[in-house]
Parts: sequence; structure tokens; C-alpha cells
Amino acid sequence: MKFATLRPTADQPPLVALVDATSQRYWPLSTLLPDFQGDMQQLVRDWPELSGRIAPKGEGHPLDGTRLEAPLHPHRNMFCVGKNYFEHAAEFSSSGYDSSTTADDVVPKHPIVFTKAWNTLIAHGDDIPRHTGVTDQLDYEAEFAVIIGKGGRGIKKADAYDHVWGYTIANDVTARDLQQRHKQWHLGKSLDGLCPMGPWLVTADEVNRDAATIKCWVNGELRQDARLDQLIFDVPTLIETLSAGITLEPGDVILTGTPVGVGIGFTPPRFLQTGDVVRIEVEGLGTLENRVGR
Amino acid sequence: MKFATLRPTADQPPLVALVDATSQRYWPLSTLLPDFQGDMQQLVRDWPELSGRIAPKGEGHPLDGTRLEAPLHPHRNMFCVGKNYFEHAAEFSSSGYDSSTTADDVVPKHPIVFTKAWNTLIAHGDDIPRHTGVTDQLDYEAEFAVIIGKGGRGIKKADAYDHVWGYTIANDVTARDLQQRHKQWHLGKSLDGLCPMGPWLVTADEVNRDAATIKCWVNGELRQDARLDQLIFDVPTLIETLSAGITLEPGDVILTGTPVGVGIGFTPPRFLQTGDVVRIEVEGLGTLENRVGR
Repeated sequence: MKFATLRPTADQPPLVALVDATSQRYWPLSTLLPDFQGDMQQLVRDWPELSGRIAPKGEGHPLDGTRLEAPLHPHRNMFCVGKNYFEHAAEFSSSGYDSSTTADDVVPKHPIVFTKAWNTLIAHGDDIPRHTGVTDQLDYEAEFAVIIGKGGRGIKKADAYDHVWGYTIANDVTARDLQQRHKQWHLGKSLDGLCPMGPWLVTADEVNRDAATIKCWVNGELRQDARLDQLIFDVPTLIETLSAGITLEPGDVILTGTPVGVGIGFTPPRFLQTGDVVRIEVEGLGTLENRVGR
Repeated sequence: MKFATLRPTADQPPLVALVDATSQRYWPLSTLLPDFQGDMQQLVRDWPELSGRIAPKGEGHPLDGTRLEAPLHPHRNMFCVGKNYFEHAAEFSSSGYDSSTTADDVVPKHPIVFTKAWNTLIAHGDDIPRHTGVTDQLDYEAEFAVIIGKGGRGIKKADAYDHVWGYTIANDVTARDLQQRHKQWHLGKSLDGLCPMGPWLVTADEVNRDAATIKCWVNGELRQDARLDQLIFDVPTLIETLSAGITLEPGDVILTGTPVGVGIGFTPPRFLQTGDVVRIEVEGLGTLENRVGR
């Protein structure tokens, strides 16, 4: 199933909706589950009780004309993984922007984990803020994002997928100058609006997580093209690593890293400019497209 | 004024209380402001309307026998600053544990910012989890923490203190092996329970922010002893830097960094062991004391 957070019209409050991507129609969850008045976080949290009772009823409403929101509001920063595809690790390490690398660890031996806060989240279709005067080096990073369902600590790889509720697409937009200047990456990763996410969340059963493709175009030019089985640290390894000492909670988000082909992989680097359009597709998850604003 | 989050008895729900540290008595805020039923985040957010109406009424209740909680539950990860005292920057860079340093930046030219999530928060008096099997290298970091009041973006240094609601003490406990192994510091900083905070929050007007001392003892041995005016990047600089591209919100927390004298500054390093007691005092803020558990 697919679930979006959307406003039926621009002046109505956001609601959680079941989405049919083929017919481009939606059903407000509160019309399917009259006792449900919550947001996406609550849907994920209450999933074991709710999931069996959710099915489209009637014709639904056309998505056309609605306004998508970022699908969920995480209760703490999203976990993000750096340098998690081999060729991207090499591209980043040789770019001169990587303050985390020494000669012997171009390819990480352990997951590199930083965070992005909720102030970064914007929806499919929203403009990415240009942050003129704060950064001159905006870059895109197409990523496969994991939504945690059942929480827990000390989760083993073999059990990890029992804790995955679903997936979505994220663009881990990065201010490369800030990422480099401040050594730790949080600042360069967490400016307002630097995480387009969506268009919606897709439950785990619908996704071919091991072999789906992830592609990213800038102004129609294919820049990133990879398969999820090329991750250096796969989803079970990330969940085992994070949960060893951190209790994962329903609604936690893990951005799994970006493949080769980001702007700083080019010589000279190709940073995002006002008007550029970044489109990301992940098989089974849909399309996330955002224009860079002023 | 000082405000704690506390349970009157262990089996009662937590409440926000005005505290008199001298007489060791407290007043539940809901008895002083009958229309206030919120938590500490709401107190900070509604401060402009509430502050003029808060005063002790009657004798209050003895703090003795109550159970303190971590004073607030931040709505996103806390901002933390690394290597923000000169001598600590040198001690950390020469320790072999610093993956953020090259020869020319032992002293950071720009603030180093990472985050800790709310799962790290524990109260004065709580045990710090030992995380046996996850880390062998727990270390203490006494820190002065800033609580943002009025939010905003693009805040200039000259206006920064207008956005500070108050202060508290934090112990940025760190798993040094994870900090080193994962390059970015989030994982080594964010294991459950690795951020003792408190004992309470103190409003800005009560704190000599420029010259107060910060001291830390382990088992009674003085390990850290500094003044807040020794920060490399002072509070206004941190607020200007963070808010350049991130909208700060009421209740955001900034941990400003730790002075020289942490465990890895010794040869060999002196890591925390079960039973060790870490006590931190900041002038005007009180005492934060925690034992390392099993």
C-alpha cells in the first residue's frame, strides 16, 4: 500500500491518505478508518492494529489538484549514511570535499552515520531553497529511505526486515562548502528544505528491496543509475549497527546513502543552480521531482 | 528562575515545577498557572505570555523524595559543538581518536556541529548505561547547554542573546571507539542514555554566562576546570552560524563543547567504568551527578 500526506486543496489541513498510483486516486484514511484521526507517525506506530482494516472503499478522489506534503514528520533527526556505494565512496574521497577520509579508508569499514532534522523536509513538487549567501555549492544525492515500523534495540541482521515498515525516496541535498568547512556534516546537510521526500511512503511488501534501481536526472540528464544491491552496508547491516546501542522507534527514518554521479564527482563540479530540476526514481516507489528555487 | 521536570513520587507522572535551589523546595507550575498543563517545551514556547505570571505561592513542597527527569524532551536532535575549547581541541587531536582533523586544523576554523537525539537524555541521579558489548571506551564531557527561546533564521551575533531562554548542564558522554570507527560522530554520541542533563533549566537572567566556571570530577578527582569565556566559538557565534540556514525553534538545545581534561586526554586513556561517579558543576546552574551503571 501507498500512503501520502496531502492537502485536498491548498487551504485545507493535511491528512493521511491511501493512494493508488496507477489510477492516481486517493482515499482519506479517516474515511476508511473512522476512528483514525492521526498523522503518518501514528499510522506507522499503530500499523499492527490498523493494517488489516485498510482497503479502498468507493471511487476515491483524484490526486490531481491536491497538494502533497513531506510524507511524515519524524520525532527525531533522520539517520543518514555516508559513502555507502563503492563508486560514490571513491568519487567523494577524490573530490577534495571529504573531511572523513584518510588514505586507508576510501571505502568505509563501518557505516558513516550523520543526521538531518525535520526542518529539511519538503514535498515532491516543492522548490529546494537556494540558500543564497549561505552556500554556493548545493548538490543532489538520490537515496533510498527506510521507515522503521517495530522498534527495538539489539536487532540482529536476520530479524532486521521484521522492523521495516516501508520505504520512500529522499534527496539528501547537501551544501558541499558547509559540509567541508564544518568537518562534521550536520550543518551542510540540515539547512531548511534540503531533504525532498516522497512522493509517498510504500509498505515493504510492495518493494523489491534487493534489486530495485535508483536513478537521478538533473534537467533531464541521467546522473545517477544504480541498483540497491550495490549498497556497501545493506539495510539489515544498518539496522543492526544503529540498534546495537540506540533503541529504534516506529517512524524512525534511515537514508541509506547515494550512488556515484553527484555534482562534485564532475571536474569541475556541477552544483545546482536556480531553476535546475532534480528528478529521482526508485522502482516501485515512484518519482520525486523538485526544482531549485531562488 | 529555575524549572525542573520531576515526579513528586516515583509512581506519579512528571510535571513541570518552579524550583528554589536554596530552600530546596518546588511549586508545580499548574498550581501557579491554573491554565498551564503543558511540559517544559510548552513553557519555553509560551514564555512571553507566561513569564510575568510565575511566582512562588505558599510554602511549596520539598524536593527531597521527588524524582528528577531530564528537564526537557527536544523535538529534534540537540545541536552539539566539537572541539570548542583550545586546550581540549589540542588534547583531542593528539589522542588518536579524532577523525576530523588534519595537521592544519587542530584548532577548528569553523564550529564543528553534530547531534545527539532525545534517546540519550537521562536525569541528574540516573545511571549512565554502560553499554557493555557495544563500547569499551565510555568518556565524559562536561558541557554548558543553551536553550533557545525565541526562534528565527539569520540571527546576528548582536541579537543572539535575545533568542536564548536559558541554560543547563549536560554531560556529552561519548563512546570513543564508535566515534572513531564511524568517522562521523553521531553513533558514538547517541547511544541510549549518553546525555545526562540538568538538574534543571535556569533562565538566562540568572546566569553569568561570560565568566561562569565549569568543573567536572570523576570519583571526586577534579578533571575539568574552565571558564565559559574560554570557548573558541562563543554562544552568539554558534547561534549566528546555526541559524544562517536553519530556522531555530523554541526549545532547541545547543551543547557548546567540553573543556580540556576528558578521559582520552590521559596516557593511557582513563575510560569510565561501572561504579564511577561523574559530577559536573557550572556556576549558577547547579550540580549534575551520575554514576556509571552496569
